[in-house]
Amino acid sequence: MGPSVSAGGMFDLQAWAAVQLDRVEQALSAWVAADAPAGLGDAMRYAVLDGGKRLRPLLVLAAAEAVGGDAQGALRTRMDNAALRAACAVELIHAYSLVHDDMPCMDNDVLRRGKPTVHVKFGEARALLAGDALQALAFELLTPDDGSVGAPVQAALCRLLARAAGHEGMAGGQAIDLASVGLALTEDQLRQMHRLKTGALLRGSVVMGAACNEGVDAEAAAVARGLADYGGAIGLAFQVVDDILDVTADSATLGKTAGKDAASDKPTYVSLMGLERSMDYAQALLAQALAALDATGLPASRTQALRALAGMVVNRDK
Amino acid sequence: MGPSVSAGGMFDLQAWAAVQLDRVEQALSAWVAADAPAGLGDAMRYAVLDGGKRLRPLLVLAAAEAVGGDAQGALRTRMDNAALRAACAVELIHAYSLVHDDMPCMDNDVLRRGKPTVHVKFGEARALLAGDALQALAFELLTPDDGSVGAPVQAALCRLLARAAGHEGMAGGQAIDLASVGLALTEDQLRQMHRLKTGALLRGSVVMGAACNEGVDAEAAAVARGLADYGGAIGLAFQVVDDILDVTADSATLGKTAGKDAASDKPTYVSLMGLERSMDYAQALLAQALAALDATGLPASRTQALRALAGMVVNRDK
Repeated sequence: MGPSVSAGGMFDLQAWAAVQLDRVEQALSAWVAADAPAGLGDAMRYAVLDGGKRLRPLLVLAAAEAVGGDAQGALRTRMDNAALRAACAVELIHAYSLVHDDMPCMDNDVLRRGKPTVHVKFGEARALLAGDALQALAFELLTPDDGSVGAPVQAALCRLLARAAGHEGMAGGQAIDLASVGLALTEDQLRQMHRLKTGALLRGSVVMGAACNEGVDAEAAAVARGLADYGGAIGLAFQVVDDILDVTADSATLGKTAGKDAASDKPTYVSLMGLERSMDYAQALLAQALAALDATGLPASRTQALRALAGMVVNRDK
Repeated sequence: MGPSVSAGGMFDLQAWAAVQLDRVEQALSAWVAADAPAGLGDAMRYAVLDGGKRLRPLLVLAAAEAVGGDAQGALRTRMDNAALRAACAVELIHAYSLVHDDMPCMDNDVLRRGKPTVHVKFGEARALLAGDALQALAFELLTPDDGSVGAPVQAALCRLLARAAGHEGMAGGQAIDLASVGLALTEDQLRQMHRLKTGALLRGSVVMGAACNEGVDAEAAAVARGLADYGGAIGLAFQVVDDILDVTADSATLGKTAGKDAASDKPTYVSLMGLERSMDYAQALLAQALAALDATGLPASRTQALRALAGMVVNRDK
């Protein structure tokens, strides 16, 4: 089942994504620190550019469009500016987390997106610094001083990103992951770990996209809640599928080392539920995500990209 | 010469700092992640609490007071809220940089503030994550959603902190530092390295303190420039004195390994200029800092704490 089918027919995700990704890649290339001193910029660019599915940026842009697609004029311009910056910022956080996660003291991975990992290419010290600088740059992108994004939106985006990335989000989930190697987690514990480790930033991407709109008022609470629920469901689905692919795909397709979870005795959905139940669970989460979009009350024409992205997350092969 | 003398007579820095530090310590203890999962919170608190001179928070609070000391009512309350959050945020960035800097792939230090470093106590992986989470928490502190700090101030503080911490600030300086071990730097190159590595966050602390004031208008450009120059001068002075102390103080007094720079063949002001010229340079930077405060046009009564802190930076013995 291709993603455009689960999107409900006519929407062409590939075409939409191609346009968005072009904007994102250009912006990342312009904004990621070519001028950073002493090789730091090279390491940062290597970590970010020319790789990755850019799922998080696409979620930001799709959510912004879903909520603010009617905005006009200056309001629309500021929303588009904010959404592009938010899209790049979440990708920088994701990229930094991969750099640090791959380091010898963490997962000790030498291959990522089919290329040597950052510490293999640039050394551990520079990889550590590049990750640190990418996190700072994410917040710098969210706070331009040229009036192109309103201050309330800047503040909200920083708040949401900090929470998604920090101890109650991604970093907290990584700490649980680290502490759980070799332990027999319950399904609840595994879900909680992934809700933070991967889910928080995916959910954060959706919520940040919605927050790019200055005009959103209290009436939109149903929208905000629905989008957050959508983000939570696909965040979890993403990890379930990741666990499935770790056992069903090969390293060449994945662009990273397959079978790694089982080899390192990490608890996964597959080890806990078995392969078949994991695949059913992923489909159930997809249904949850689509139901959450319905609950927003937004017209279906506006949520097409989000629907299609949910399908892509669950039905991807890498 | 004690700091209160260089402050110009009657101002009691110790008493002022004691009051401020009490607020900062309480705030840090309340805000630093006791609830973070899987030991992450313990590592974060260990890295931040009960240690350090808190120079950066004091600079934030002194600069806020210098610019906004006349503010009244709700404006004053919001300034105080912002300044306390900014004070804690810069300290979190400083703390995370020490955690990462001490790791085996960087300086490989086992002693910090007289205690085992974070990776020695909690393991490398958790130290890496704790540093990452502390950086995110800094931006979270700057963006409360309770209306206690205005959105424009939140956005400005995030912008200033991100720049001070990132590739054009602290992380960039660390990258230069890393690349310069064993090289013969010129005085200009050394200054540029420290302007970023240590200076950016110290200068940023002063500028962030000033930015806590919503009422600051275009007329205040001289104030902003003077404070930034002050911050730049003491930022550099701090590093010159650090280099001096590395050769003149013992490990017990410093709370960290003395003589480390020479042993690791790092370029320092002392190795470049000699001890005596370095000490003269530190005093010249102190004079520059005080002159920059004069140039702000702020009444002397308002800049007492900043003057005294400059004296403390230059005349400290650890």
